[in-house]
Amino acid sequence: MKDLQRYKEVYLNQFKENTYGRNLLKTEDSFDAPSEECGIFGLYSENDVDTFSLSQFGLFALQHRGQEACGISVMKDGKIFNIKDEGLVLDVFKEIRNPETFMGNSAIGHTRYTTAGDKKKYNFQPFFAKNEYDQIILSIAHNGNLTNAHELKKELEAEGVVFKATSDSEVILRLIQKNLDLGLRGAIKATMEKIEGAYSVVGMTRNKFFAFRDFHGIRPLVLGAIDEKTFVAASESVALDAVGAQYVRDILPGEIVYTNENEPGLQSFLVKEDCEKRICAFEYIYFARPDSILENINVHEIREKSGMKIWEQAPVEADIVIGVPDSGVPAAIGFSIASGIPFRPVLIKNRYIGRSFIVPTQEMRERIVNLKLNPIVSEIKGKRVVIIDDSIVRGTTSKRLVRILKDAGVKEIHFRSVSPPIIAPCYLGIDTPSKDDLISANMNVEELRNYLGVDTLEFLSMDNLKVILGSSNHCFGCFTEEYPVPPGPNPDFKDE
Amino acid sequence: MKDLQRYKEVYLNQFKENTYGRNLLKTEDSFDAPSEECGIFGLYSENDVDTFSLSQFGLFALQHRGQEACGISVMKDGKIFNIKDEGLVLDVFKEIRNPETFMGNSAIGHTRYTTAGDKKKYNFQPFFAKNEYDQIILSIAHNGNLTNAHELKKELEAEGVVFKATSDSEVILRLIQKNLDLGLRGAIKATMEKIEGAYSVVGMTRNKFFAFRDFHGIRPLVLGAIDEKTFVAASESVALDAVGAQYVRDILPGEIVYTNENEPGLQSFLVKEDCEKRICAFEYIYFARPDSILENINVHEIREKSGMKIWEQAPVEADIVIGVPDSGVPAAIGFSIASGIPFRPVLIKNRYIGRSFIVPTQEMRERIVNLKLNPIVSEIKGKRVVIIDDSIVRGTTSKRLVRILKDAGVKEIHFRSVSPPIIAPCYLGIDTPSKDDLISANMNVEELRNYLGVDTLEFLSMDNLKVILGSSNHCFGCFTEEYPVPPGPNPDFKDE
Amino acid sequence: MKDLQRYKEVYLNQFKENTYGRNLLKTEDSFDAPSEECGIFGLYSENDVDTFSLSQFGLFALQHRGQEACGISVMKDGKIFNIKDEGLVLDVFKEIRNPETFMGNSAIGHTRYTTAGDKKKYNFQPFFAKNEYDQIILSIAHNGNLTNAHELKKELEAEGVVFKATSDSEVILRLIQKNLDLGLRGAIKATMEKIEGAYSVVGMTRNKFFAFRDFHGIRPLVLGAIDEKTFVAASESVALDAVGAQYVRDILPGEIVYTNENEPGLQSFLVKEDCEKRICAFEYIYFARPDSILENINVHEIREKSGMKIWEQAPVEADIVIGVPDSGVPAAIGFSIASGIPFRPVLIKNRYIGRSFIVPTQEMRERIVNLKLNPIVSEIKGKRVVIIDDSIVRGTTSKRLVRILKDAGVKEIHFRSVSPPIIAPCYLGIDTPSKDDLISANMNVEELRNYLGVDTLEFLSMDNLKVILGSSNHCFGCFTEEYPVPPGPNPDFKDE
Amino acid sequence: MKDLQRYKEVYLNQFKENTYGRNLLKTEDSFDAPSEECGIFGLYSENDVDTFSLSQFGLFALQHRGQEACGISVMKDGKIFNIKDEGLVLDVFKEIRNPETFMGNSAIGHTRYTTAGDKKKYNFQPFFAKNEYDQIILSIAHNGNLTNAHELKKELEAEGVVFKATSDSEVILRLIQKNLDLGLRGAIKATMEKIEGAYSVVGMTRNKFFAFRDFHGIRPLVLGAIDEKTFVAASESVALDAVGAQYVRDILPGEIVYTNENEPGLQSFLVKEDCEKRICAFEYIYFARPDSILENINVHEIREKSGMKIWEQAPVEADIVIGVPDSGVPAAIGFSIASGIPFRPVLIKNRYIGRSFIVPTQEMRERIVNLKLNPIVSEIKGKRVVIIDDSIVRGTTSKRLVRILKDAGVKEIHFRSVSPPIIAPCYLGIDTPSKDDLISANMNVEELRNYLGVDTLEFLSMDNLKVILGSSNHCFGCFTEEYPVPPGPNPDFKDE
Repeated sequence: MKDLQRYKEVYLNQFKENTYGRNLLKTEDSFDAPSEECGIFGLYSENDVDTFSLSQFGLFALQHRGQEACGISVMKDGKIFNIKDEGLVLDVFKEIRNPETFMGNSAIGHTRYTTAGDKKKYNFQPFFAKNEYDQIILSIAHNGNLTNAHELKKELEAEGVVFKATSDSEVILRLIQKNLDLGLRGAIKATMEKIEGAYSVVGMTRNKFFAFRDFHGIRPLVLGAIDEKTFVAASESVALDAVGAQYVRDILPGEIVYTNENEPGLQSFLVKEDCEKRICAFEYIYFARPDSILENINVHEIREKSGMKIWEQAPVEADIVIGVPDSGVPAAIGFSIASGIPFRPVLIKNRYIGRSFIVPTQEMRERIVNLKLNPIVSEIKGKRVVIIDDSIVRGTTSKRLVRILKDAGVKEIHFRSVSPPIIAPCYLGIDTPSKDDLISANMNVEELRNYLGVDTLEFLSMDNLKVILGSSNHCFGCFTEEYPVPPGPNPDFKDE
Repeated sequence: MKDLQRYKEVYLNQFKENTYGRNLLKTEDSFDAPSEECGIFGLYSENDVDTFSLSQFGLFALQHRGQEACGISVMKDGKIFNIKDEGLVLDVFKEIRNPETFMGNSAIGHTRYTTAGDKKKYNFQPFFAKNEYDQIILSIAHNGNLTNAHELKKELEAEGVVFKATSDSEVILRLIQKNLDLGLRGAIKATMEKIEGAYSVVGMTRNKFFAFRDFHGIRPLVLGAIDEKTFVAASESVALDAVGAQYVRDILPGEIVYTNENEPGLQSFLVKEDCEKRICAFEYIYFARPDSILENINVHEIREKSGMKIWEQAPVEADIVIGVPDSGVPAAIGFSIASGIPFRPVLIKNRYIGRSFIVPTQEMRERIVNLKLNPIVSEIKGKRVVIIDDSIVRGTTSKRLVRILKDAGVKEIHFRSVSPPIIAPCYLGIDTPSKDDLISANMNVEELRNYLGVDTLEFLSMDNLKVILGSSNHCFGCFTEEYPVPPGPNPDFKDE
Repeated sequence: MKDLQRYKEVYLNQFKENTYGRNLLKTEDSFDAPSEECGIFGLYSENDVDTFSLSQFGLFALQHRGQEACGISVMKDGKIFNIKDEGLVLDVFKEIRNPETFMGNSAIGHTRYTTAGDKKKYNFQPFFAKNEYDQIILSIAHNGNLTNAHELKKELEAEGVVFKATSDSEVILRLIQKNLDLGLRGAIKATMEKIEGAYSVVGMTRNKFFAFRDFHGIRPLVLGAIDEKTFVAASESVALDAVGAQYVRDILPGEIVYTNENEPGLQSFLVKEDCEKRICAFEYIYFARPDSILENINVHEIREKSGMKIWEQAPVEADIVIGVPDSGVPAAIGFSIASGIPFRPVLIKNRYIGRSFIVPTQEMRERIVNLKLNPIVSEIKGKRVVIIDDSIVRGTTSKRLVRILKDAGVKEIHFRSVSPPIIAPCYLGIDTPSKDDLISANMNVEELRNYLGVDTLEFLSMDNLKVILGSSNHCFGCFTEEYPVPPGPNPDFKDE
Repeated sequence: MKDLQRYKEVYLNQFKENTYGRNLLKTEDSFDAPSEECGIFGLYSENDVDTFSLSQFGLFALQHRGQEACGISVMKDGKIFNIKDEGLVLDVFKEIRNPETFMGNSAIGHTRYTTAGDKKKYNFQPFFAKNEYDQIILSIAHNGNLTNAHELKKELEAEGVVFKATSDSEVILRLIQKNLDLGLRGAIKATMEKIEGAYSVVGMTRNKFFAFRDFHGIRPLVLGAIDEKTFVAASESVALDAVGAQYVRDILPGEIVYTNENEPGLQSFLVKEDCEKRICAFEYIYFARPDSILENINVHEIREKSGMKIWEQAPVEADIVIGVPDSGVPAAIGFSIASGIPFRPVLIKNRYIGRSFIVPTQEMRERIVNLKLNPIVSEIKGKRVVIIDDSIVRGTTSKRLVRILKDAGVKEIHFRSVSPPIIAPCYLGIDTPSKDDLISANMNVEELRNYLGVDTLEFLSMDNLKVILGSSNHCFGCFTEEYPVPPGPNPDFKDE
């Protein structure tokens, strides 16, 4: 009976998705939107390894890059299997009763960022393409955002290609699929020559593995090895740690790494020589895990240095320095080291409130202030406090934080953002609000200080950010509005 | 949450089906088995009609040909949608909340016979084939059984075709799919030239409708019209009545009827001229509804005549004649008319016990005798009774019936089967037991009379059966072991 | 996870039912409505028997009295278990994986009539009452309708009793529960002295079984025995046949049969002496199974006689006589025997369309005429036909039937109802429409003949009905508007 | 259909629970086991407030005390509703579509600790008792463990009380229920005079609220007020912060606070005068949130002081001090302040791996070392490291941690536990392993140092623990094996 029900749902679903999907796609503009920040993981071995467990370990380590949904595709005996669903890695794969079934030669995985609003299920990754016998022949996982996805999609639809999802990642999938007669490397090359924007991709056919990265290396993608026959590609090096792999190098901008039937190990091919590296600066500031190493730079170190640097840039007398958990804490410690002002972990984050929940009355909604962050009042009451956060986006969280501190009776508040003011949205893979909602795009620092009601307010300067990052070869688009690739034709449109 | 669950099940299912399916197909012999008796329905209109409702009406009328599962494919705006599930027509389609979505130009439907044992879900019909973009491009519903399905399947697999089901119907689907570049008519012709056995098929591509019948017309397939632009094909004429269609003619042995883009209405093409008609005699005796007309012969009339004829063949003195419901009743009335012995409807069938159910103890299982058939004791006690059944297959039901009558105190029992002894299984679309379980293949009439414990026992003779059918142009395989097409290489194997 | 989900639903459900139930009960008048015709079954054994299987057999035999829902309560080791759900007996209990768990000393069961509209789940039977530790201490199954349920409910609520359902059956349950300190027999006696209307009840406490019937015996209740220690009570004798029990006698009007701890076997107690028997005449005409015997009268025989009698009452020249399946068929055969006009089973009922289904367009709805009843045209075309039905209620079915016959080309239609005109609703347990919808309450015979468009129309006369029933000791309320007990204060209100 | 399914499950469930429950309870010893650490929350208002939302806020703040399951009972218009389920607060209550339905006068809530093994669903809290009409009349939530539950349960069962769960909390429920005729206060007093062990309880009848605490105040229970008519009781003061309540005082050992119909506000009653306070020391060390205040002592402050004190007790030369997240971090900062050795947050905890998951091969299981804790290698390589943890229980985590540090290339490891060696299990509400599994019950410090492979190992001394806690009025049972109440008769038995 259970099985029957399931069977029925499969078929009913098919109906619904067909009709529903069509209606959605009618809306011309439902497409050219940024994808969100995500984590990707890929693994290939010439030996027999437990690709399914290793992929889960890798995704656990990348869970901070996306908690909405996740998925894994496994290549096994010339077939590709796919599991994906809404939920954490821990929840989605616990349903798999016989995980040994999914040990194969290769696997790719994806964690998807939580976004507000309705989840579009067919947008979960890895994506896959099937042949006419319902067999998966190609599967990819993508982190990034294409800026010309809308145009390419129209072009492909005119050629008869049918899209199932609204994500730009499907454009990559369909382009590779369409060009498979050029060989795998040729198909990826042809795809990279069409698509524009930021993309780090791992993928597989029924017998080959591949990974590639856009011409500026905007989103991270590192390469590691468990042994000489087992290779790993992942968004961050923590995923290598999680599977016991050694970090080898970052995949290069414009590079394809792939396997083929004739040669052992991974092959490399540069679609374009001499690409300029422009990895996203925000990965270091906020997104990546502190224990990750990206492009040979230790994330934790950057954060600690940012705290030190902002003390240099804007010293202040105070009794205590506090970091907003989690990414503000290393910066606060750096600030403490540089300034000698004692650091205290006295702002406690409730780790169980990750998602929004329904509160029926306005009165109740206003009462939620202390639920997510609660101060240890005795430690800050009457004190001059430096509070350090990684950035200020909409300003609402900062405002609420200031209220919490004031309610706790602090004497002075010195607010420090260890990134420059965010004045522009990201079109290259991070989900930021539009300009209207970016408070630094609408207030100067003094106005914002006033709005927040703090004694002093400082942002890390662009120059100092470049100093601590050690170069200006990064994407600083959200701080400068200058992007390595131009935004697409409808840059302000968001699909979700 | 509900939706999520459903979504997950779709994907989990995919996994299970992939792995499960593969294992199943490894068993070489899991295939060359008869399909079971089923009902098919197809409809094509150049006008806008409610194809979905009409198909349901048609399937209601064909429900007696299969209660295990049913399904409908609808062609709408160049797309094909499919719904199929375990259950009665009334149950499967009540879940469809927005039936208007499925009104299209054409629809085909199928009712599947209940068989013992585990249902293989991927065997439900209509079958469909998809293109690489997951769109259905071809769908068929089949009644009959191929005798060379196993060989054809091996041949196709060697060419790289992937099978999803274990049913021979998929061979028909895949052959048409493979030959679609010959045009639709060409693809069907090529298919009919390969397949052997009994088949009545309705189907559709994304813009065309078709129906075809094997070279002997073994399984029925009638043609009707609702108006001059709306055509219907169905297993029995009752399905025409149900949709308000007029009976036009039976589709001919070896004929394809189909639509094409250039000409209005239905086209006809004879793949082979001068085929010999050999429709199954058992359709008249047992399977078809009494209000159906097949090959211009009224089923009810045949049954009444069979009762009259067996009186002629084997008269007997008795007080009362009883028919075993439902198909034995018209024969009993015919017998009563011919003999003057009064007919009485005194054997009551419980219509709510269609399927088997679990009884935990042997003692209880033996007590079930009267549950399905209960006599009105006062009407038969002390009487000489003629009891008329359509046929005797395994003999167990007859034996139980005799026990019921004896428990009720009848004086004499004169058992009449209005078909000849069944001595051989059917390989052409009806689910009969193997020879070992056919009681008339193992006992002569006297032995069987003794076994049943009745006073007299008579079977309608083959000659008399031909007389009432008006010709010997039928398949009498189960009575004579002579079939219009030879059984396949593994005739005794049954897949379910 | 499945289990969790189930668990949650239990609790969520509790919430919903609590709030929902309260709202429902606020509507003062949501109550004093007739219950519908149902089947009840009870079994008690001093031996160990498979009470659960036997109850299912009994309910199979009573399935015609209700297909909406069913349930069983089992007494086992001093505990009562209850299973009840929407669906047929075959469906509801197949979910029980370990039926041996439910073999006990006693069991009661119920089949509930299908009614239009939304099913109120808490109204499924058997009902049960619990103690403060959530253990069931009393369970009953009821067929009939109380006429003073509304008043009694108000009275009990004023005393603090809480009702969970809207059915009058709960009034019986709560009255017995409330009076249990009088002993079981005392509690039932006290209950019978309060309630008015028609009621046949079977029930159990944790160690005793009972059955009782109202003071006129309006609804049937027969008593049987499987052996000298195993007793059965059921709505109809077919349920005795189904479990291999011998018919003993009908339970008397005003009688309680019950077990107690001191004496073996069943005890009997007459709450009132010399009650007048007034069993419902419609049970014989339509509701009961033809193979049942009620109050020593064979149902089939009554139906056959009714056909004979109406020929006497209104002879007609005709070529063929047809019965409307199923209950019109024995009457048609009786008519044929009396008149010599041949009977033919040429109106074929589709047995798979028991419930209503959704048809999206009006055009389609009008096309459904032949779906449920289909004539064998060749047998009736050009003929003078007598068509016999058990009764005419709303007239819509008769009108549709006449249209079918005319479409088939009959020459004359002579319509015979083998019951008198129904001019008044039933308040005593049968679900009939209100007077406005009873066509014979609004048209005389000639008007109705005209409306139906038939050549002649006759109803069996009241006198003839009494003749064939052999007495006037019946309830003829729907024909005469004279009831053995007066309708309650809001007789025209229906709750469902 | 969905609803039907749910309904069926309710009834099937009832069957299963009845039979299952009985079998479970047959096992005599399935009971006298410690409950686990949990969080409780209660709220009462004379005004209309959104009790349901406030309870959720309170439970969010207490989620760290239990993530397995949670529940809320609401008193509303003289009725009690209950929702409870497996899962986090965020998940369980998001299913409630109409939360406004559950705003009432009072609410109680519970978060349940995650334990290994199968969850027993009927053990989720709040517990409730029903009357004979299936209405909840009493509901409680309990944190603690009774030491004489097994004996009391036997006693009550002998009196006919039926238990549904295996938790000792039900003993409290049933004792209050049984004594309700003494009035609410009387019933609680009678209960407290029977039960022994540790218990903090919140509860409600249909119109009254109450909270009480055992005679030693072993588990915490604080009292707060939102306004003068709205009172809150909770396990920790963070739950007061979460609902905007002011801390009033801790509920006293042996105190009942309760409402009654005659007087406004909360009443207080001391069942026993002059009870000795003995709150659990481990609450400060590990269990409570750092921002909580228990018995007027700030938890964060104790943790920071413990780090300072262990520096005093066992100074060491080192380059860096690290805390094991989360509770080791404030101690590490205290250590850093006292010693001048710099603190670094370089051990990163993966917050998404809260529960166990299935890994099919042993090889994979061994690879999981770095998954939960990952070091920033560059910060510790070649350094002398002080690593501070709150305690050492089984030793396995510490061993793994040491391996991680060594793999990262640290030069020296100085391990500090800021609590004394744990040598005995807790029988008073915290889930600790038995003595066999407590490493400090089986090794002395030097043996353990050797086993862990660290350079130095120190535990905070009992004397120093008393110094920082400011008194010896605590339960130190797990460190000293001296408990304020004696363990029950089967102290080593664990039910789960």
